[in-house]
Amino acid sequence: MTDPFKQLHDAMEEFSAERDWDQFHSPKNLAMALTVEAAELQECFQWLTEAQSQELDEKQLTAVRDEIADVQLYLIRLAGKLDVDIEAACWAKMEKNAEKYPAEQVKGSAKKYTSFMSNR
Amino acid sequence: MTDPFKQLHDAMEEFSAERDWDQFHSPKNLAMALTVEAAELQECFQWLTEAQSQELDEKQLTAVRDEIADVQLYLIRLAGKLDVDIEAACWAKMEKNAEKYPAEQVKGSAKKYTSFMSNR
Amino acid sequence: MTDPFKQLHDAMEEFSAERDWDQFHSPKNLAMALTVEAAELQECFQWLTEAQSQELDEKQLTAVRDEIADVQLYLIRLAGKLDVDIEAACWAKMEKNAEKYPAEQVKGSAKKYTSFMSNR
Amino acid sequence: MTDPFKQLHDAMEEFSAERDWDQFHSPKNLAMALTVEAAELQECFQWLTEAQSQELDEKQLTAVRDEIADVQLYLIRLAGKLDVDIEAACWAKMEKNAEKYPAEQVKGSAKKYTSFMSNR
Repeated sequence: MTDPFKQLHDAMEEFSAERDWDQFHSPKNLAMALTVEAAELQECFQWLTEAQSQELDEKQLTAVRDEIADVQLYLIRLAGKLDVDIEAACWAKMEKNAEKYPAEQVKGSAKKYTSFMSNR
Repeated sequence: MTDPFKQLHDAMEEFSAERDWDQFHSPKNLAMALTVEAAELQECFQWLTEAQSQELDEKQLTAVRDEIADVQLYLIRLAGKLDVDIEAACWAKMEKNAEKYPAEQVKGSAKKYTSFMSNR
Repeated sequence: MTDPFKQLHDAMEEFSAERDWDQFHSPKNLAMALTVEAAELQECFQWLTEAQSQELDEKQLTAVRDEIADVQLYLIRLAGKLDVDIEAACWAKMEKNAEKYPAEQVKGSAKKYTSFMSNR
Repeated sequence: MTDPFKQLHDAMEEFSAERDWDQFHSPKNLAMALTVEAAELQECFQWLTEAQSQELDEKQLTAVRDEIADVQLYLIRLAGKLDVDIEAACWAKMEKNAEKYPAEQVKGSAKKYTSFMSNR
């Protein structure tokens, strides 16, 4: 079995079982923890310009890598509790997005992009 | 090639290129979008009890699935822009967590769990 | 002048000017910082049950007080940059809410509440 | 009595009592709702440049005003549930900040600012 989602899921399940942490891992709590981790990831960028955010130094990148992992791990854990197949959900969502944002209509204009996005 | 992270990454890259959206996808902006999607996922649970959050009906689950996908897709997109290997980052983080929260020390007690967590 | 919003606004403006921090305080960046602080506030509650969240000990309450202040201060700073009168905005929003959620229609039922909320 | 925090607090309490919504308003849930509203506020800015975020048009500003109000109202509601005096908490936090970021040490340099901030 080489599916990375499945492997990470199983490793987290074991990790959590060994610590008796399942009692804290309701979907509600996991969704809260996920948002907190996403905010910590965002914090790495908040005082940087967009250009600076593309040129992180090694120290910044190490922090970012850890936060990306935290978001991913809580997402896998939450999806596991709800029996959601993340990969399948992503492909289904990409199809919806392709219908919602037809390339020929939204291409090239920031105005169109943001007005599309804000009218979702 | 069957790595789901890679396949989703490439599909998003193509999707974005076709729409000229790369100009909006600085790491800073993608990190913001990720947090917004995490908050939308959290919103599905905010007025539910923890018990209710474990027993979603089909309509709730459909919404949750879409939001999980949105978080995952922005995370892949952000990691791609920064050349971060999500899977490797997750395994590295799990090792750090294993050192930080030794099973024998944190097991079983909510008090220990939350005090550990709040002293991170 | 005894308006607390105005007094806090002026104190923050002075604080920021003394440190040359205005350059970082675009509305975009302040909105990011606000979300990060809100997530830190939320983090205080994430592993607590709803009942526990009502009975914080003094240490928890001190942390919560600080995070509430951080959210409030960034909100005042952001509103100031955009010339938004927070108090007036609140009263206007409460009127909108009164129209959107008529007491006689939404009263008493969790189901009605959450379905109202999720259909916003 | 002209304290705006108190007036808004009392108006929200009445609004909530009329709708039997107190049952949903545990501090935990209110903290979640606050973060969701902060993220909605942030969403108004996420695809804008920092410069654009300073020059909102009337439509954007109307949306921002509503989201600022939502954040403020949930913050007042949460603070009320925990008997936290927001204004006092803000002044106390500003004193802490003045000690933590001495003007003469942090002035003028983005590098110093962000490294100060990231080492909090």
